[in-house]
Amino acid sequence: MRLLKILILLIAVLTTICMHAQVDRKWENEAFKIKSIYDTALRDGQCYRWLTDMSLQVGHRLSGSAGAASAIDFTKGILDTLGLDTVWLQPCLVPKWERGEKEIVRIVGSPSVGNLALRALALGNSIGSGINGVEAEVIEIFSLDSLRLMEPDEVQGKIVFFNRPMDVTAINPGHAYGSAVDQRWAGPRLAAEKGAVGAIVRSMTMALDTFPHTGSTDYSPSGPNIPAVAISTVDADLLGSLLDRENVNVYIRTTCEMQDSVISYNVIGQMNGQDRADEIILVGGHLDSWDVGHGVHDDGSGCMQSIDVIYLLRKIGYTPRRTIRCVLFMNEENGLGGGNAYADSSNAHQEFHLAAIESDAGGFRPMGFGLGAESSLQEAYLRSVNAWWSLLESYDIELTPGGGGADIGPLKSQGGMLFGLRVDSQRYFDYHHTWNDTIDKVHPRELKLGAAAMASLVVLIDTFALRIYE
Amino acid sequence: MRLLKILILLIAVLTTICMHAQVDRKWENEAFKIKSIYDTALRDGQCYRWLTDMSLQVGHRLSGSAGAASAIDFTKGILDTLGLDTVWLQPCLVPKWERGEKEIVRIVGSPSVGNLALRALALGNSIGSGINGVEAEVIEIFSLDSLRLMEPDEVQGKIVFFNRPMDVTAINPGHAYGSAVDQRWAGPRLAAEKGAVGAIVRSMTMALDTFPHTGSTDYSPSGPNIPAVAISTVDADLLGSLLDRENVNVYIRTTCEMQDSVISYNVIGQMNGQDRADEIILVGGHLDSWDVGHGVHDDGSGCMQSIDVIYLLRKIGYTPRRTIRCVLFMNEENGLGGGNAYADSSNAHQEFHLAAIESDAGGFRPMGFGLGAESSLQEAYLRSVNAWWSLLESYDIELTPGGGGADIGPLKSQGGMLFGLRVDSQRYFDYHHTWNDTIDKVHPRELKLGAAAMASLVVLIDTFALRIYE
Repeated sequence: MRLLKILILLIAVLTTICMHAQVDRKWENEAFKIKSIYDTALRDGQCYRWLTDMSLQVGHRLSGSAGAASAIDFTKGILDTLGLDTVWLQPCLVPKWERGEKEIVRIVGSPSVGNLALRALALGNSIGSGINGVEAEVIEIFSLDSLRLMEPDEVQGKIVFFNRPMDVTAINPGHAYGSAVDQRWAGPRLAAEKGAVGAIVRSMTMALDTFPHTGSTDYSPSGPNIPAVAISTVDADLLGSLLDRENVNVYIRTTCEMQDSVISYNVIGQMNGQDRADEIILVGGHLDSWDVGHGVHDDGSGCMQSIDVIYLLRKIGYTPRRTIRCVLFMNEENGLGGGNAYADSSNAHQEFHLAAIESDAGGFRPMGFGLGAESSLQEAYLRSVNAWWSLLESYDIELTPGGGGADIGPLKSQGGMLFGLRVDSQRYFDYHHTWNDTIDKVHPRELKLGAAAMASLVVLIDTFALRIYE
Repeated sequence: MRLLKILILLIAVLTTICMHAQVDRKWENEAFKIKSIYDTALRDGQCYRWLTDMSLQVGHRLSGSAGAASAIDFTKGILDTLGLDTVWLQPCLVPKWERGEKEIVRIVGSPSVGNLALRALALGNSIGSGINGVEAEVIEIFSLDSLRLMEPDEVQGKIVFFNRPMDVTAINPGHAYGSAVDQRWAGPRLAAEKGAVGAIVRSMTMALDTFPHTGSTDYSPSGPNIPAVAISTVDADLLGSLLDRENVNVYIRTTCEMQDSVISYNVIGQMNGQDRADEIILVGGHLDSWDVGHGVHDDGSGCMQSIDVIYLLRKIGYTPRRTIRCVLFMNEENGLGGGNAYADSSNAHQEFHLAAIESDAGGFRPMGFGLGAESSLQEAYLRSVNAWWSLLESYDIELTPGGGGADIGPLKSQGGMLFGLRVDSQRYFDYHHTWNDTIDKVHPRELKLGAAAMASLVVLIDTFALRIYE
């Protein structure tokens, strides 16, 4: 009896050992490829160098601007050197919004502070005030619902100030952003509908600093529109505490305007698949940025990581079974012209994207990927991908349900997988949409680790993944 | 049959639901406490403010220096305000090493570069060259083993230059440090034994920059000793490539010296346990730093997080069952006088530390805790802690085997748990032991998240953990 027990135990142990050894052996080649990708990325990855060059040579690049045109040339120039099968520009229609002269936003005639300039940026897509500006009394609002409940005469002729801070107790700053950004996106339109003459939004950041953060507001060509600006959190706190004590008038002068839409381009490079060329694996980011700073974390990082994926696969001599496409989308920030044009063209050509991977959360230390898909397919894809995900876990790359990116979102209906690179975002909203988003905020290793994670995921999808049909 | 199957399935589902609900209900209080700790830390945590103040008011604080004395006063002053049961200074003997005048390290009479200054710092605990300095031919070495194999006359009278870079392909920079630091720690002593007259070590960083990184070298009072300096990685690359082409003489002048040991202090604050007061839970970091920069990541961060743990527990009104002790250790960098004195005193008083938690990996975004213990106990502790660790997982705090810290290491023999806070260390070795380790390198939220994780772990240990006996 005792001997039998020992024998059973021995068999159990040996079986476990053999199974582990088998798994290891089965994936030995893939593990080796991923190690090569990481080693190459950390020794020789180019994303940080390219990002530095684009940051200094091109700078910011709002859709339709000279900077955007220059960024298209710059990145196509890099792709042209990588020995791809095809590199091309894909036309798309984008809005052309111009900021105009430096914004003037000023507290007027306050008993406490007199005339005091507030650090401000016009919100993207917003209209200008006219050269004479507008001056009105300010009312402070903490939620869109409370504004909705107000009587029109409480709002009529006023400037509405949206001052609900991002929730500092959120562990993930992205969630705090998601819970606060309705003020910037939908606030000015709602204020306009209620008869306000201007809107001021507290900047979307947890930091208490003097940088205003711009970003899109929901421009409605048909409805009433009013000038809308973001002010820094320091100024928002000041204005808020002033409003606790006295009536405050603010003067806003912006000369921004939406001009006619123009043709711009997505920049695309492709390695043809050798076996299942009709299935596409896409890596991408968005090439446009706001018209302040250098758009380095948002989203120069994602673009240069995506090109680096191609560089790394070439460097390790990888021959893809499927078609691998690097896409730098235009116009994520204020229209999604590029993402929509890409999906429209892809659908018209009856393409199938087995996977699309977007990096648009900043060039920070990668934490993992979120995986999204059509809701009827997501569970099955998660299970199938989970089977080989352990190959990425030793690089601290986790798989979480739900994910993708604004530019690749329109591809979801093709029935493939959408992946979003998740990063450690504690510092992201210090820089997001400001003059502060510059190359000195990026750590070379953090950026390269992201490119390595993306390239590894591409190889694993190309090796293991299968289309799941409904 | 069909009905029976459905019934069984239903029972299985209901059981699962009830179990989950029970688990959730069972830990509702603890989950609420942890949420309170995190909310309080992120809204009102003091560690960043204190760290800023110490950085600017005290600066660096090498053991035995005026800075160290000032840091003792500064931190005791904070602890005195927190309503603790006891705050005291615990004496310990520490070495008193002084850097002396600014180091001169210079390439002499090179055909290529003439006389060229190298950016250098004397290694901690090393001896000075004497005021006339030493000049000798340089030999480049990539491993201690290769130096061991050399004939004495190849080394005699030379300056040995240890130039093996940290492995940039390591995902965890700490591992790369661990694989390279033998050059700094044991290299100069070995070179001295072989008859060298000086040692130069490539700085311990993956970055290519112009900051020399100091740190301890293994000072042997009995054996031969030689002046030893670190030079920046930029200078190390230059010197290395010069040595590929020509013989190079270098002049080293350092006036550092080891003086007589002096009395210094650990700073300790204690909340008495209400129920199991004889079991101690310790949180700590080390108060001393190198004598360059402000020692902010290394390890002002860990000290201020440890004090913040006390602040947070008081703020949420937590009454501990066990005794909770905040210990700021003196002399981690070049002697461990504080850690050893603490353990000696603790053992003499027959204390038992159920857990000791050290933060000494920089004030970066926390990733989790490593858990170490006597080897015969580690598995059992891991299993027992793992039972409730899910409470920390929603805060992205993982449990990994193995961990602790230099200062708490001597407590291991008491048979309790040692925890080391693990952080995202990609940026750590950019600043480590340099003039560059200053407050602008710390992100307030990252630091506070670490304090919250430590305070949460203290509460969970106090609530759930049990001593495991061999």
